Amino acid sequence: MVSATDAPVIDLLGLIAAGELFAFETLARDSALADDLNAKSALGAIACREFGHFQLVVARMRDSGADADAVIGAYLPILSEFHAKTAPRDLLEGLLKAYVGDGIAADFGREIAAYVDPQTRGFLDDVLSGSGQAEFVVPYVQQALSQDPGSAGRLALWGRRLMGEALAQAQRVAADRPDLAELVVGGGGQTGAGLAEFANMLARMTESHSARMRSLGLAP
Amino acid sequence: MVSATDAPVIDLLGLIAAGELFAFETLARDSALADDLNAKSALGAIACREFGHFQLVVARMRDSGADADAVIGAYLPILSEFHAKTAPRDLLEGLLKAYVGDGIAADFGREIAAYVDPQTRGFLDDVLSGSGQAEFVVPYVQQALSQDPGSAGRLALWGRRLMGEALAQAQRVAADRPDLAELVVGGGGQTGAGLAEFANMLARMTESHSARMRSLGLAP
Repeated sequence: MVSATDAPVIDLLGLIAAGELFAFETLARDSALADDLNAKSALGAIACREFGHFQLVVARMRDSGADADAVIGAYLPILSEFHAKTAPRDLLEGLLKAYVGDGIAADFGREIAAYVDPQTRGFLDDVLSGSGQAEFVVPYVQQALSQDPGSAGRLALWGRRLMGEALAQAQRVAADRPDLAELVVGGGGQTGAGLAEFANMLARMTESHSARMRSLGLAP
Repeated sequence: MVSATDAPVIDLLGLIAAGELFAFETLARDSALADDLNAKSALGAIACREFGHFQLVVARMRDSGADADAVIGAYLPILSEFHAKTAPRDLLEGLLKAYVGDGIAADFGREIAAYVDPQTRGFLDDVLSGSGQAEFVVPYVQQALSQDPGSAGRLALWGRRLMGEALAQAQRVAADRPDLAELVVGGGGQTGAGLAEFANMLARMTESHSARMRSLGLAP
């Protein structure tokens, strides 16, 4: 267990802030792709909720005396690569990405909670739960599938690609950011969960993703 | 003077809501173009402020019993054309557009205030003032100009194009939306300001735009 001002927790907050910032940008882009006002309103509202979370995380990092710009800045290339490799080709892919990304972020928050101090845990609960707003996506995807059943294959593939890229970037984070990796895996005198538990964590997140895909009527 | 539930006022609110929504989307796109965290934070904050205003306007329209979706929806093609014709090629053009657009929106709010009831006027004050947040753009543009003085010509041209397209779309709005045109110009039994005053209003807005361009060190 590490405390709120330790480097691993600051690193974790930096990753989360960068994730929220990119979520804001991509959801806003989806809003621009949408042509009906309800979808625009819903996507804009989620985008701005993510931006609000980003601001909260930055404020918390600064309160802890961290150089938020530097820590978050270090994650921007990784997140940028993830989003560049998973740029939606249309609104439907964008919506599925919002839904899948929201789920992965919430799962990650639940998993990581075990390794941080209670104050940080409570804070993460506030900024990473609140998911469920992306639930508005479900009827859109289901309607698209009923109108064009042939798109199920393409979307299933898209969902697998999203999770695959997320896992690839998670490994890059673990390699590039030893402080954060130690938080989960342990090492350097600290006691983390070990590599086996890290692998289990990724397996649980993958299973949770598969369950979400199945609930949309898509092959995981 | 027309009251808060009259068709011209509802039409005006629809135009403003559509404008706020597009401002949100374009500012968020600028945030994605920016690569430093301060610019991203500032652009995201303004984008979400615009989205919050959009939500307030929609709520007010619904409270007045208006079909917000239909009224706003009618403006989406016009705004969409404006933004398609003024898509920034880089962050600097995006920032200048944010600054110029913010100024035009605030000017429009001040001008239109003369023609609406006091309640609507107070409401418009809240959602259309607050400009000045776009002021953060000024040092960015000035820094870019000092590093690359040759870009002054390109940016001056860009500023003129933005105002030109805004005026062209204003005329399209006046032609397509007679309720709104009557609010300012009058007609059909109502007493508006008349065509001469409408022309004066556009002239004042153009002069105000020119003053902003000069304050940036750009030829108007």
